[in-house]
Amino acid sequence: MTQLELAKQGKSSDQMQLVARAEHQEVAFIREMLASGQLVIPSNKIRWEKVCKLDPIPPCIVCGIGKELRTKVNANIGTSSDYSAIEGELNKLKVAEEAGTDAVMDLSTGGDIAAIRRKLLSECNVSFGTVPIYEAVLNSSHHPVREKSSPGHDICHSIEEMTGDRILEVIEDQARDGVDFMTVHCGVTQSVLAELEKQPRVGGMVSRGGVILATWMRLHQKENPLYERFDEVLEIARNYDITLSLGDGLRPGALADSFDRAQIGELMVLSHLARRAQEAGVQVMIEGPGHVPLDQIEAQVRLAKSVCHGAPFYVLGPLVTDIAPGYDHITSAIGGALAAWAGADFLCYVTPMEHLGLPTESDVREGVIAARIAGHAADIAKGVKGAAEQDKQFSLWRRQCNWDKQIELALDPKKAAEARQTRQSHTETACSMCGEICVYTLANLKPQVAPTRLPARQVKSVKSVARD
Amino acid sequence: MTQLELAKQGKSSDQMQLVARAEHQEVAFIREMLASGQLVIPSNKIRWEKVCKLDPIPPCIVCGIGKELRTKVNANIGTSSDYSAIEGELNKLKVAEEAGTDAVMDLSTGGDIAAIRRKLLSECNVSFGTVPIYEAVLNSSHHPVREKSSPGHDICHSIEEMTGDRILEVIEDQARDGVDFMTVHCGVTQSVLAELEKQPRVGGMVSRGGVILATWMRLHQKENPLYERFDEVLEIARNYDITLSLGDGLRPGALADSFDRAQIGELMVLSHLARRAQEAGVQVMIEGPGHVPLDQIEAQVRLAKSVCHGAPFYVLGPLVTDIAPGYDHITSAIGGALAAWAGADFLCYVTPMEHLGLPTESDVREGVIAARIAGHAADIAKGVKGAAEQDKQFSLWRRQCNWDKQIELALDPKKAAEARQTRQSHTETACSMCGEICVYTLANLKPQVAPTRLPARQVKSVKSVARD
Repeated sequence: MTQLELAKQGKSSDQMQLVARAEHQEVAFIREMLASGQLVIPSNKIRWEKVCKLDPIPPCIVCGIGKELRTKVNANIGTSSDYSAIEGELNKLKVAEEAGTDAVMDLSTGGDIAAIRRKLLSECNVSFGTVPIYEAVLNSSHHPVREKSSPGHDICHSIEEMTGDRILEVIEDQARDGVDFMTVHCGVTQSVLAELEKQPRVGGMVSRGGVILATWMRLHQKENPLYERFDEVLEIARNYDITLSLGDGLRPGALADSFDRAQIGELMVLSHLARRAQEAGVQVMIEGPGHVPLDQIEAQVRLAKSVCHGAPFYVLGPLVTDIAPGYDHITSAIGGALAAWAGADFLCYVTPMEHLGLPTESDVREGVIAARIAGHAADIAKGVKGAAEQDKQFSLWRRQCNWDKQIELALDPKKAAEARQTRQSHTETACSMCGEICVYTLANLKPQVAPTRLPARQVKSVKSVARD
Repeated sequence: MTQLELAKQGKSSDQMQLVARAEHQEVAFIREMLASGQLVIPSNKIRWEKVCKLDPIPPCIVCGIGKELRTKVNANIGTSSDYSAIEGELNKLKVAEEAGTDAVMDLSTGGDIAAIRRKLLSECNVSFGTVPIYEAVLNSSHHPVREKSSPGHDICHSIEEMTGDRILEVIEDQARDGVDFMTVHCGVTQSVLAELEKQPRVGGMVSRGGVILATWMRLHQKENPLYERFDEVLEIARNYDITLSLGDGLRPGALADSFDRAQIGELMVLSHLARRAQEAGVQVMIEGPGHVPLDQIEAQVRLAKSVCHGAPFYVLGPLVTDIAPGYDHITSAIGGALAAWAGADFLCYVTPMEHLGLPTESDVREGVIAARIAGHAADIAKGVKGAAEQDKQFSLWRRQCNWDKQIELALDPKKAAEARQTRQSHTETACSMCGEICVYTLANLKPQVAPTRLPARQVKSVKSVARD
């Protein structure tokens, strides 16, 4: 039985108990939310069986994503045709975990994709996701990096050669390897693409999985195999208890394209498919934009949550401006905070290298922290258990100039300690910004300060002024 | 006559014309907004006279701050007792201007404060602000840096020795030097401090100017001289056409303290003083928080705007969490975007070094860019003229893989170019994230792709599927 089937029967899984403990919630609450489809715990059966043999079980190996829980963060890692060495990705996995990510997705598109996935999975201590269409289209595990090919020609050929059977085969291969959750772009249908034709975009389609499927559909004049054969996808997902993440192939990739007919058309398809997945005992999340103006973020989240029956909403960003390459961890932290506050449950990080190249280890670190900041700010606003208390305790240590405690409780202790080291103060308690005029030092001095030395008459007249 | 007096008589200043041009607005609109107190153009008479002799006049030497204008950004620079060399601050001024700041404030508290201010002013090409209370309390221009003093003792002595006359003298000195706008913490009154006593805070008072005045008021048991002698402050401001920025000495420095009685008490005092300033022909802004939970930001801005008759609102942050030292440019970009969207007009940057030490040049750069991102995202949401168009044009270039144009139009061209250089692709048009499976390359290939090779019958059956 899958966790969803268990929950519907009122039974709790070990994973539900782990999540309940981590979130300071009752197991019954976690189970009921999972049964209702408003919460997921991605946890592949095969991987979980292996995990259970470990002693101790890594505490972050599963996480709950959904209503009233702490907002979770995903870090995309993986090779590309330009940087295909596995070592770099293993390092990024470590960096992402150290920075506090709740999940990673392996989006490898270079080198021996299957081998890289298996290696990353074997080293990973958090939820693990993939986008199987990449492996399906790159097909052979030794897709060559060509030095001077005519742009796009080879990849077009690979897309044309791909078959529906091959996609399902890859999904099953990845399930067998232990992948916890998978992005499947089932909503990129012919009718949705027809909407895109009728209302052209500034930025076009920007989802790689979505574009791969749309290109295949155009070349073959066929329906999206992930849509047509959704029951087969569900069967695999049910067998391995994979959580499906219904991808948004039509997500806006430019602010100007937010909330257009194609985007909403796809969302409506996902709404139907989400219900079918839940009925089949398969946990499901909905993926969301993308590039969205600040004033549309709340509406985007509320619409998706409403039409998808409260299914966990997994957003990429949203980025609140198109024009800041090099800083898209910040543009997406702004959007992510608003989205999570409005109800998004899972933030896919965006790194400073977004739109420019494959992220480095340092980009991964910056991306995870920025997304965690966004999630935490939203959790305070949403009243998630324990969120505001962290800030209160931190501020009490700050007021006392207790630097060890501040650094220990900081969202990124390493960075805080390094920064303080860089710009030291000659004072013992203050920082080098304020030095002797540290507000906390002045306030703490209160009892030692001599009271007024003014004659009584003058004091009296001052008091009467203050009363006015 | 001051600009405000001119505007009330329906006359336009040269500065109003410059602002109108920069903002794509009619001069009449700028003048009317300025006359109504909803827009300010900080521009000291003495400095302006000097500027007019330059050829050409630096285009950013004045900026408009207020209703329907682009959100402006201020960068705080200046020495501290730990880092008192002027060279570092001159470099930061350059960096801040290169990064696109609209204003700088010299908050120097170390070295020869008056000499540093004059030097920075002489090199500065944007609006220039100060907080005169620092110089007033540090008093002598050669306040010594003591190696092993008992913490806070010397500064307490300096605060005690300060007089109201000295504060006014410093304000006049700085006005004579050409400072465009000044923060004066006039709202820290005895009655506001009494509220603070009654409702104690987690983070206490965190405004340096506020704490200096509160300490002085406690030591002398007198009312705040900036409040008692506000008419004299106005007289100086009027003489030099200084824009007053009414400081928020009681701003919350911890999320838990947001919207407490002391904060609101001070805001009510500022509301009265703002009106008095405007009646005296003095332009005025209101300063705002601080550390504020995401869900209170809009209310903070709307309240301040409402009780202060729409006067431009100048916020520090707001920071949406206390626990992220090392990343407070991001915590404040989140809050700043929301605040600006809700109506804040002027964002004081916060750097990654906030709460940890005096910022470095690189911190200044990161801080300015983060605040500009916040402001721009808000400007799109607010419908500020020309804002959304920038993103649309940028996304068109992105779709065409025109890297030169993307870098040219990027918010920070230097960073974008460097990042792209760091992670090059073997492809000509794509980036190293996607390489051959670049969505734009695939989309652009459309006409070259051979159409379907499937028999007509199969196509038909697919179409009927798509129709379902």
